[in-house]
Amino acid sequence: MIILDAIAQTVMERCDILAHYSEDTDRLTRRFATSPMRQVNDIMAAWMLAAGMTVHHDCVGNIIGRYEALGTDAGTMLFGSHLDTVCAAGKYDGTLGVLVPLACVERLHEQGRHLPFAIEILGFADEEGLRYHTTYLGSRAVAGIFDPAILQFVDDNNISMADAIRRFGGQPDPDLLRTARWQRDELLGYCEVHIEQGPVLEAQNLPVGIVSSISGQHRYALSFRGNAGHAGTVPMEMRHDALCAAAEYILAVETLARNTVGLVATVGQLQVLPGASNVIPGSVSASLDVRHQDDMVLAEACKNLYQQAMSIGQERRVTVDWQCIQEHKTIFCAPHLSLFLARAIEEEHLPVYALASGAGHDAVALSELTDVAMLFVRCKGGVSHHPDESIKTEDVAVSIRVVEHFLDHLCSMGG
Amino acid sequence: MIILDAIAQTVMERCDILAHYSEDTDRLTRRFATSPMRQVNDIMAAWMLAAGMTVHHDCVGNIIGRYEALGTDAGTMLFGSHLDTVCAAGKYDGTLGVLVPLACVERLHEQGRHLPFAIEILGFADEEGLRYHTTYLGSRAVAGIFDPAILQFVDDNNISMADAIRRFGGQPDPDLLRTARWQRDELLGYCEVHIEQGPVLEAQNLPVGIVSSISGQHRYALSFRGNAGHAGTVPMEMRHDALCAAAEYILAVETLARNTVGLVATVGQLQVLPGASNVIPGSVSASLDVRHQDDMVLAEACKNLYQQAMSIGQERRVTVDWQCIQEHKTIFCAPHLSLFLARAIEEEHLPVYALASGAGHDAVALSELTDVAMLFVRCKGGVSHHPDESIKTEDVAVSIRVVEHFLDHLCSMGG
Repeated sequence: MIILDAIAQTVMERCDILAHYSEDTDRLTRRFATSPMRQVNDIMAAWMLAAGMTVHHDCVGNIIGRYEALGTDAGTMLFGSHLDTVCAAGKYDGTLGVLVPLACVERLHEQGRHLPFAIEILGFADEEGLRYHTTYLGSRAVAGIFDPAILQFVDDNNISMADAIRRFGGQPDPDLLRTARWQRDELLGYCEVHIEQGPVLEAQNLPVGIVSSISGQHRYALSFRGNAGHAGTVPMEMRHDALCAAAEYILAVETLARNTVGLVATVGQLQVLPGASNVIPGSVSASLDVRHQDDMVLAEACKNLYQQAMSIGQERRVTVDWQCIQEHKTIFCAPHLSLFLARAIEEEHLPVYALASGAGHDAVALSELTDVAMLFVRCKGGVSHHPDESIKTEDVAVSIRVVEHFLDHLCSMGG
Repeated sequence: MIILDAIAQTVMERCDILAHYSEDTDRLTRRFATSPMRQVNDIMAAWMLAAGMTVHHDCVGNIIGRYEALGTDAGTMLFGSHLDTVCAAGKYDGTLGVLVPLACVERLHEQGRHLPFAIEILGFADEEGLRYHTTYLGSRAVAGIFDPAILQFVDDNNISMADAIRRFGGQPDPDLLRTARWQRDELLGYCEVHIEQGPVLEAQNLPVGIVSSISGQHRYALSFRGNAGHAGTVPMEMRHDALCAAAEYILAVETLARNTVGLVATVGQLQVLPGASNVIPGSVSASLDVRHQDDMVLAEACKNLYQQAMSIGQERRVTVDWQCIQEHKTIFCAPHLSLFLARAIEEEHLPVYALASGAGHDAVALSELTDVAMLFVRCKGGVSHHPDESIKTEDVAVSIRVVEHFLDHLCSMGG
């Protein structure tokens, strides 16, 4: 176990090292196809080569390390996560899911051991979607669901995605991207290790948990249009205050989510116009994010929230506009892979705890290609997408062991 | 009445003319001590001179026209309002209160008639406070309550108020400003004609109304600090959503105001951080504006709203910070001047309707110097501080007649 602690310590140190490669000087921000992303890929390539892997970059900018199988034609097990970050990010979101399986491959390499199947570790070039406001650029290319039309998207500096990929050393060729889908040999599946980004495992006092599904996520843009007016001269009974309508709606959203098991619903953005202390708000725009692991429950909740928005608007004579931004269905993790993770956790003498992921992950895109599984690692206070993101070295050690046991079970499946 | 309609038409045309003098090309914005303000003062001076008045500018930049009395030592009646505007303003807010009494003086001048008292018309250089974020610069100087300390305030271009006054042709001398208070002869009072900026007169189907008082106004800045978190991963029961707390508070404010006769309360500004659709709001800052004509009721309401803010915060484990920005008491209009206005309205065969002003006006500052009265003129839909601000020519005609009758009553008071 002393060796394992040292290995986990190395993973933590590598997270620290990679966190230095940022577009901002005072915080971690690493967008798709940027110079810090290039440096991180180069460092990762060196670590992969040292672990006995062959390394290549694909046409969109993902880094892929391959650890060959003992024989041939026995298929490949994929691991991975993303190496890009949000703005003012933590050190573990994404990165951990590349470094934990790499630690396992290093152990195999040290022992001179190869498995009946090959292992590939994917470091995705984009999951967060910060640069082009569209997510999963890396995993979509691997899964064969990359839409070449988005190559024309431009970033805030008016650089097109095609140009950015070219400058990064990739090949923004629509035909190539369309056919970049995994084609070499049979896939055994995809397993992603990721920090939970929520407080559930901490509340359960557990280092790791198995993801049962990645919840469906619906996003809407709402606007409330009432009448602006002087805060001192328009009597209350003559007002059509857009912010009061929005406030009533925000509480309706909260109440429905509190009363529906497993539902989370959030109004995270709100813009009030004209936005002066002495002017009655004339219009408010708001975001709405609703998630549930059961697509039926989710659809029902969104219908309910739509109806409540309209009835609040009607009651207050405030015009409500409801626009759908996205409606993603729930992705289910493969039971046989999750079972291997469960046995692996039991072998660590830990209770097996399964939870739905409310956050999206590369596994969503990969599920279009192969069976997927996910292992969550506890994080402090559920904090993520923030410099305070924090995990424990001993939890990382557990996750390494669980992945090792998981690989053993995968071996026995073939035998 | 045909003559009067023509005079009212002239007032409307003058409002149109002055609206061309703006800092912005596509909308009316005229801040304190700017070049368009200089041009407006020059045009106003020409009109005042043509009406038989003497004209001067005071040290802060107000324009003052004086129409002499028949004799001497009979005192002076002040009229006026402000010539600055808000950003993207209407044409009548302020301007009307200078042009209506000017029309009355023109009529006197045409008839070669002088009254037993002098009339002064004040065009205040600043009421809105747009440039230096502090209001009533013009009327505070006249009333002798100008605090010279604010001469050091700088605008968005880092120009100090002292420099701006100097460039405008004024004298930013603290001693001079401190003694600029009216000193020449006895004052009979100050009467301000102003658009209502609210919907009450329109709802009452009345062209004009008498202002009984200018409501006390309390302003506060609130902040709600909860915990930010991932919108997909933090279960509802573990959230401390700052926006939900703010929403509950906004509705509490609305409910109290709806249930308290005469109270208006408004949350006009709201800023949500971090402000991403997939992040639970961690902090919200909000403005609160509360007004009532009875200072006791106002104080009681604000105490209630403070307590509700604290209890919502406690219930939700969201930290609430409450900061007082200003607490202005109610100003009462002088009964004898209001009575003259009432008789004048009756002479126009119109019902007399008195209302509290929820908006602040130059009369607030002038009340420190002399008795004040105000005549409100109906505006369309209560819309003000907006390019759509609109009044009727026939209502302006009524206001001119009412001021003429008012002057007659003031004459008889002296006799």
